[in-house]
Amino acid sequence: MARAGRRPGQTETREKILDAARHRFAELGYDGATVRGIAADAGVNAALLHHFFGTKQELFAAAMNLPVNPASLVPSILAGPRASLGERLVRAFLAVWAEPAGRTPFVAMLRAAATNEQVALMMRQFIERTVLAEVARSLEVPKIRVTGIAAQMIGIALLRYVIKLPPLVHASDDEIVEMLAPVAQYYLAPPA
Amino acid sequence: MARAGRRPGQTETREKILDAARHRFAELGYDGATVRGIAADAGVNAALLHHFFGTKQELFAAAMNLPVNPASLVPSILAGPRASLGERLVRAFLAVWAEPAGRTPFVAMLRAAATNEQVALMMRQFIERTVLAEVARSLEVPKIRVTGIAAQMIGIALLRYVIKLPPLVHASDDEIVEMLAPVAQYYLAPPA
Repeated sequence: MARAGRRPGQTETREKILDAARHRFAELGYDGATVRGIAADAGVNAALLHHFFGTKQELFAAAMNLPVNPASLVPSILAGPRASLGERLVRAFLAVWAEPAGRTPFVAMLRAAATNEQVALMMRQFIERTVLAEVARSLEVPKIRVTGIAAQMIGIALLRYVIKLPPLVHASDDEIVEMLAPVAQYYLAPPA
Repeated sequence: MARAGRRPGQTETREKILDAARHRFAELGYDGATVRGIAADAGVNAALLHHFFGTKQELFAAAMNLPVNPASLVPSILAGPRASLGERLVRAFLAVWAEPAGRTPFVAMLRAAATNEQVALMMRQFIERTVLAEVARSLEVPKIRVTGIAAQMIGIALLRYVIKLPPLVHASDDEIVEMLAPVAQYYLAPPA
């Protein structure tokens, strides 16, 4: 179709930006893609993009259809008593995965990452920049300990919601929290 | 092609059996497929199938190209002092995943399970029957605790070998064992 003369509507502009973001992130990775470059590809200025989507990490979450920017959960998990940090983390994670609308895009991303090296790179850089580094710094634990609990939670999500393995699939959130909170605590709040 | 009159060679017979197994397992699940039914589909008798592939779980491992039947690792992990159970488990797991030939079929199966409900069913039943039940019984821990450590190890494999997340990807096996062994110990050998 020839290019229409009218100014595109908001929805159309948002879709253009998200499309451009998906392409740039996939091609250049999370680190390599710039908000400025994405804006240029979408034919909008960076300020408009920022107005619609906020920061680069929020844009990424929107482009990947994530129901929540994982980094946005971090402050509320880290706030509060250190003795119940593990429980807060496990509950926040289960809350996102409990809803099909929450887990579907994560599963899609995991699947894509297991299939495609470029997607794996993009996902790795996003997790590194937005979650790992932030949590490790705030809690003063080595980054590798943050990957330990991330692995635990991703594995639980996979077995509970994708493979649907009993008895995990039938267990209540409370049972899972009771089992996993000490593990999260071990990784993130080890006794000094 | 019309059916040839000659007796098929060993390789051909093995391939026929593996093909039949893949179809039956995918269609009926691990529990629903029978060795007798697979033999019938392949046009061989059950004794010949057993001679080539051993038990149903060994046949499944061969059909899925698994480099090792996960259940066959269990006895050597469970034997030995309870105090070092966690370390033995983590080391056995890392040994399988360290080799591309070891991890590729597991990754393929995980990816397929995340895409296809029937594959997820098959995988779930296989894990349940051959690993979970056996480990839970031997160690006298609730099955859900075995799923906890399974989730931990699968998550580590995913982040280390598929997503290639630093610093997990650069860590030595010893560092990973040091971090994970207490978690395995917590799940499988909790203090009485």
